[in-house]
Amino acid sequence: MDQVKTLKCVLCQREYEPQEVEYTCPLCGNAGILEVLYDYDKVSKRISKESLAKNSDYSIWRYRPLLPIKEDSPTPPLHVGWTPLYPAFRLRRKLELPGLYIKDDGRNPTASLKDRASAVGIVKALERGAHEVTCASTGNAASSWAGVAASLGLKSYIFVPQTAPQAKLAQLLIFGARIFPVKGSYDQAFDLCIEASRKFGWYNRNTAYNPYLVEGKKTVALEIAEQLNWEVPDKVFVSVGDGCILSGVFKGFADLFHLGWIGRVPQVIGVQAEGAAPLYRAWKSRKPLEPVEPKTIADSISVGIPRNGVMALRDLYRWEGRMVTVTDEEILEAMRILGQESGVFGEPAGVASLAGLIKALREGMVEKKNKVVAIITGNGLKDVSAALHAVSMPEAIDPTLESVEQALKR
Amino acid sequence: MDQVKTLKCVLCQREYEPQEVEYTCPLCGNAGILEVLYDYDKVSKRISKESLAKNSDYSIWRYRPLLPIKEDSPTPPLHVGWTPLYPAFRLRRKLELPGLYIKDDGRNPTASLKDRASAVGIVKALERGAHEVTCASTGNAASSWAGVAASLGLKSYIFVPQTAPQAKLAQLLIFGARIFPVKGSYDQAFDLCIEASRKFGWYNRNTAYNPYLVEGKKTVALEIAEQLNWEVPDKVFVSVGDGCILSGVFKGFADLFHLGWIGRVPQVIGVQAEGAAPLYRAWKSRKPLEPVEPKTIADSISVGIPRNGVMALRDLYRWEGRMVTVTDEEILEAMRILGQESGVFGEPAGVASLAGLIKALREGMVEKKNKVVAIITGNGLKDVSAALHAVSMPEAIDPTLESVEQALKR
Repeated sequence: MDQVKTLKCVLCQREYEPQEVEYTCPLCGNAGILEVLYDYDKVSKRISKESLAKNSDYSIWRYRPLLPIKEDSPTPPLHVGWTPLYPAFRLRRKLELPGLYIKDDGRNPTASLKDRASAVGIVKALERGAHEVTCASTGNAASSWAGVAASLGLKSYIFVPQTAPQAKLAQLLIFGARIFPVKGSYDQAFDLCIEASRKFGWYNRNTAYNPYLVEGKKTVALEIAEQLNWEVPDKVFVSVGDGCILSGVFKGFADLFHLGWIGRVPQVIGVQAEGAAPLYRAWKSRKPLEPVEPKTIADSISVGIPRNGVMALRDLYRWEGRMVTVTDEEILEAMRILGQESGVFGEPAGVASLAGLIKALREGMVEKKNKVVAIITGNGLKDVSAALHAVSMPEAIDPTLESVEQALKR
Repeated sequence: MDQVKTLKCVLCQREYEPQEVEYTCPLCGNAGILEVLYDYDKVSKRISKESLAKNSDYSIWRYRPLLPIKEDSPTPPLHVGWTPLYPAFRLRRKLELPGLYIKDDGRNPTASLKDRASAVGIVKALERGAHEVTCASTGNAASSWAGVAASLGLKSYIFVPQTAPQAKLAQLLIFGARIFPVKGSYDQAFDLCIEASRKFGWYNRNTAYNPYLVEGKKTVALEIAEQLNWEVPDKVFVSVGDGCILSGVFKGFADLFHLGWIGRVPQVIGVQAEGAAPLYRAWKSRKPLEPVEPKTIADSISVGIPRNGVMALRDLYRWEGRMVTVTDEEILEAMRILGQESGVFGEPAGVASLAGLIKALREGMVEKKNKVVAIITGNGLKDVSAALHAVSMPEAIDPTLESVEQALKR
């Protein structure tokens, strides 16, 4: 793993050897998120555009020399990554944006982008000899973590707020996770999970605590660049909750930029729901993050205290990214447009990116000649009740041709 | 399309030129399902094991010369097929079956195997210049049809029994389908759909009516053979409702056998739910099909009158296939085992195949040395309420480490 130089704290900037630390900066505590820094000379000797062109492993592991794992570490058997990048022709026409692409990350094994992070995280768990893993989450991160853990035979312990919807828990339980419904908030579940992982030695996947997740998430950017034959887009839209996927997208393009494979880092535009937009507000005002009481239909980005705030804001400022907000109505409209114009069914948080793009087009933030990618981070089947808010059910008819004709006239 | 010789009626055995007929045999009516017959010499000149090894199109279209479509017909943009075939190591150990593979077809765009059939069907619709398409179904076939139609801008009209669950309709509506909830049974919706398609000129995807769907479904068998480097399994387990997927699996292997690419057709074992097993009963008794009142948790195979009965029984007898039945309890148990041992979440109808394999192992129908594939036809997210029947929810705990410790002891 000598391609990894150090892990660097985003707060105090102190650097550590990978074997020195496990999760966060010992000086800054849980606020000191660590970033993985690479020796790009070493990476360059092990992977190139040419070697990739000949590589028939169409999964995230094709980028192995750019991931923070040992050369011979086993990887989970589930097929993660290399999701379709659609040149969605009908959507292009509808939005009058001929350079539009849709990255459908709901096609991952447990139906969300989070599988990229869980796959890398579980390799780190195995490298440390862990047999038991944990995380706090109600949604995609947890089901993804439980899924890859099951594929390898690791026991998973998941902390969720007691109020988590039953449907979200079904997938977890099917994967054999041990669930702890906590009488309290997500934040309490998060802290309890860290306490428990210390006490019982469980390997922890908590967001913006485990430093390796962003490295998994960045593979979506690596794929976008390779699928576009290294001609990177002008703009990339991505939904934002805790801000980890946002940082992952920046990190992937930054890696390629440092390697000299691409000439510039695309402008990444983070999209938050209006009712849960603390990162947008901080970015807009250039002021410190202030927690909010989140309220949006897009549950996967319904975050009041973005755990990866510091890193996300740094990335936005450093790479001249932007933020936009969208209403729940705009999210539901984007869900309909995406389904009707491309046959892709995204969950509300997953299509917020597209809603943001539509708003940005309207406001002139995107030009018609731009090459633009919208990342759809999760499948709509994850939240069918939200989808039902976006549509209306027609009236029943008698089983006769006349009734069909009458209905068609209505 | 000269690789297609004729369409042959499974009842009267009369053969037709492809341009002569659209759906079923003019003599036998809707009972006369047509089968696509190929000129394998012509196919052999256009595709080979070697040409496939060099083909980087990892979708069902890599088998284009073996599909009943014109050489230059456009195909839908959604990425269909080449789903993972997992050598599910932990499941192998659990079932003491070292030659087991899981084909996860829930990884298709709308999360079920039906996308294979819809993709081929929609190409036929386009070839006929159709702008509007229809089908009757409550489940996977309809959402799949609406999805590929949306990706191409074709309008879809879907007939469903009024009692269809709202959740199943959400996906359809998101894809912009025009839904007709019919005051009546599935059979009435089916017949009304055919009437309406004749009246309005809509291209029809009804199961065992449109002759091209089995050709799409067969690609799952083509992939299994290629993914196993043409060393075909001894046995393939697949869930059975109408019997179309069963015939598709037989057809794929039969094509490869006729081409001389494989030495034998694997034994295909169809699995029905005990509460909806008319094909099993007919096969077992060698008597004609008798309709049943279906009752099973596995809604996608909850079929009382199997529409593809004649062809499915013919295939079972001709290729020495078998049928088994499983209880709803065994289906839910298979769902848990699959999730816990492999990280794959299947819907009840999708995992009935695995439940059948487990029963067959118990009864000595499968030997430990056999190479066996179980096809998982749909993703569990399609029916979360069924999954909740398979698991039980633990009690909520206080947000303290002591409560975690106590819960672990329980």
